[in-house]
Amino acid sequence: MPKVVFTYFDTKGWGEQCRLLLTYGGQEFEDRRMTHDKWPELKPKTPFGQLPMIEIDGKQYAQSLAIARYLGRKYGLVGDTLEDALEIDQNVDLLMDLILKGAQIYRESDEARKETLYAEAIKNVFPGYLEKLNSIIEKNNGHIALGKLTWGDFVIAGAFGSLKMVVPMPDIEQKYPAFQKVIDNVYSIPSIKAYSESKK
Amino acid sequence: MPKVVFTYFDTKGWGEQCRLLLTYGGQEFEDRRMTHDKWPELKPKTPFGQLPMIEIDGKQYAQSLAIARYLGRKYGLVGDTLEDALEIDQNVDLLMDLILKGAQIYRESDEARKETLYAEAIKNVFPGYLEKLNSIIEKNNGHIALGKLTWGDFVIAGAFGSLKMVVPMPDIEQKYPAFQKVIDNVYSIPSIKAYSESKK
Repeated sequence: MPKVVFTYFDTKGWGEQCRLLLTYGGQEFEDRRMTHDKWPELKPKTPFGQLPMIEIDGKQYAQSLAIARYLGRKYGLVGDTLEDALEIDQNVDLLMDLILKGAQIYRESDEARKETLYAEAIKNVFPGYLEKLNSIIEKNNGHIALGKLTWGDFVIAGAFGSLKMVVPMPDIEQKYPAFQKVIDNVYSIPSIKAYSESKK
Repeated sequence: MPKVVFTYFDTKGWGEQCRLLLTYGGQEFEDRRMTHDKWPELKPKTPFGQLPMIEIDGKQYAQSLAIARYLGRKYGLVGDTLEDALEIDQNVDLLMDLILKGAQIYRESDEARKETLYAEAIKNVFPGYLEKLNSIIEKNNGHIALGKLTWGDFVIAGAFGSLKMVVPMPDIEQKYPAFQKVIDNVYSIPSIKAYSESKK
């Protein structure tokens, strides 16, 4: 088994999907939680000045989705064909389009402008993505692709909290209930359930 | 050989990387160029209401990077190991971070605000990404990863025009000359050279 150190801040954010995948894969790993006061010291020593970062037998890699896809392939969570892998990738990228649109507004520092942008997006932008994703998950029996568990489900399970933060629609869970099915499917895996309970 | 139809607007934009990869792979494909007046009619018939779209033996897929990664795997442009594939993915995602930051400002409709945001990003945001990417390419002998040709190089070759549009730094090519090496490496492949000349 390779020696793995996973570094991220002490939050789910963009790191949890990777922690969940490592847990699913039965990979022992050091779950290194970075504090914001120590981050400036570590930052220049990371590949891109970004977290999360994973070290595999001493070699460092960055970029949350790239790491999740890698772990998904390693643990057999990518389907059987290249077209299967493409279907997961495209659906995850649609999810990312939505999250990035939300994050862009979330980072706006002018509060009045932020409010206007959110009002517009909640009316005209977010619902289209959410309806599409909800219907994709419905069609795939509570999964993001292929009708079965893939690494993309771990992205939803890990990042749905962040999604709700940057896409602030109070009725999001009631209106688009399929996301919760994915989360429940992931957290009902025994090793993931045990991991989750150990973090409470 | 599967029947492939590739649909995008009549521009390089986010489609060219896929056209170049299909050409590299020797895949015959219908290069369907959508006009903006016909797009509203096609839009609801695409997987996500987005272009590019690829149809492989009648099945449709969306999302430019997902398609490029798929074609890269199909044509042996992903290295040998899962870690190789991860290295390409993370470096391409860093490129995408830069492009998305640029695109976010590019889409700003308030011209005065756009100018302020660009001035700030050109000073404090873009150079960090460009220096990092330039140094990655230098280290990889004119490639984005693995020290050899991968599908990531086709992303740079296809999208560098778009990058320059959304990251408007007049001296970008002089200051970060490694990008041009990647482009030259891709366009010196005989089939790509022939394709490129046929489009002039």
